[in-house]
Amino acid sequence: MTYCVGALVERGLVFLADSRTNAGVDNVSTFRKLVVHERPGERALVLLTAGNLAITQAVVSRLAPVGGDESAGPLATASDMADAARAVGAAIRGVYADDAASLKAHGIEFSAHFILGGQIGQEPPRLFQLYAAGNFIEATPQTRYFQIGESKYGKPVIDRMLRADTSLSDVAKCLLISMDSTLRSNLSVGMPLDLAVIPSGALAVTRRVTLSEDDPYFLRVRTSWNAALEQAFRDVPDPDWT
Amino acid sequence: MTYCVGALVERGLVFLADSRTNAGVDNVSTFRKLVVHERPGERALVLLTAGNLAITQAVVSRLAPVGGDESAGPLATASDMADAARAVGAAIRGVYADDAASLKAHGIEFSAHFILGGQIGQEPPRLFQLYAAGNFIEATPQTRYFQIGESKYGKPVIDRMLRADTSLSDVAKCLLISMDSTLRSNLSVGMPLDLAVIPSGALAVTRRVTLSEDDPYFLRVRTSWNAALEQAFRDVPDPDWT
Repeated sequence: MTYCVGALVERGLVFLADSRTNAGVDNVSTFRKLVVHERPGERALVLLTAGNLAITQAVVSRLAPVGGDESAGPLATASDMADAARAVGAAIRGVYADDAASLKAHGIEFSAHFILGGQIGQEPPRLFQLYAAGNFIEATPQTRYFQIGESKYGKPVIDRMLRADTSLSDVAKCLLISMDSTLRSNLSVGMPLDLAVIPSGALAVTRRVTLSEDDPYFLRVRTSWNAALEQAFRDVPDPDWT
Repeated sequence: MTYCVGALVERGLVFLADSRTNAGVDNVSTFRKLVVHERPGERALVLLTAGNLAITQAVVSRLAPVGGDESAGPLATASDMADAARAVGAAIRGVYADDAASLKAHGIEFSAHFILGGQIGQEPPRLFQLYAAGNFIEATPQTRYFQIGESKYGKPVIDRMLRADTSLSDVAKCLLISMDSTLRSNLSVGMPLDLAVIPSGALAVTRRVTLSEDDPYFLRVRTSWNAALEQAFRDVPDPDWT
């Protein structure tokens, strides 16, 4: 399983992904699920992936810079973010055309989920969620975030805390708390975590952090959130049974 | 959808159920999902139900006191809680034998989930979860609660707060907060809520409350938990990006 989340606020975009993949509980590995496509000053994109690892890697590979040239390739040349989302959709459909029949013969579902966010040129930052069929939806002022993978445990805290005017630091904090709730409740979501931030107008990934199991900041988030929740619980009035 | 949860601590049992059922978003109704079987001083049992309403009502009906006589019927005569769990399992299998083939002909899954808890005579309180196959598992000191229906949104808060020595008031508070998180994230879980408490040794349901949309205590739980969570969020240190 996987948990990835991307959020769009007025001040920019924040992305967070775990790095555990598993094919059964006895086959657990660490793979990065957060991919950055960046040409600073011109565009900055982040792609998050969940689902069958062979499929998602094949999609990522189709989107990679051609021959290592950062100015070539579907995401490097997309004219705007909607064009970039269509490029990811086309890559998904290409992998489907190549692999789906063979997978079906082996009884394997074509499972692939993506979040794409970023900013290109003068356009404001945008955020998309893509489905296995290659189609997609876009975040709006009413729905400012997307989750893929094990999404439910970590959803309530985002629903409560995320606002249009939340600072990027607070968005990062909110997503890390959401991840902490997920890590506690689903063993197949695991460290390290990959975090990336694209501030509005920066046209660059200004923060990119890998948080390991013993990262002091993440440990402080875990500990202080737990302590604060226990205090919050005590602050809720006891039932009045009358 | 439904959300029901039952918890077993040293001081007894607490049960909470929502009351919304839906067959599509345009067919939403209110049905009670919490059933009490009680002979004060001798036994007290609570059954929570989720799944296909026709199936769960058929099961509940098979377990009802025979001819309205509270001393007759499978749960009234079960010798202990494991015997009661087997009686619920037998009722599920009876409904399956009657209905499953017809349901299958209409492409309808035999979906039924139950939580059974209570105390009979000298035995300590016990808590079970039953599956559609009529088999069941029992809560242990390591796993003190069961959820059926829309379980994930409300799980993190229980994982954090529930301990063996939690007071029954705090268990009720914890389950209500868990329900609040679920109500916020899933529209198909809805008020009113049914809450029941069986303290260890009481051999009676000492608290049974129906909480409506505008119940002052539940509103206070919602408001104060939300405010406390926002404070808790502010108390978590900001990211140190260095």
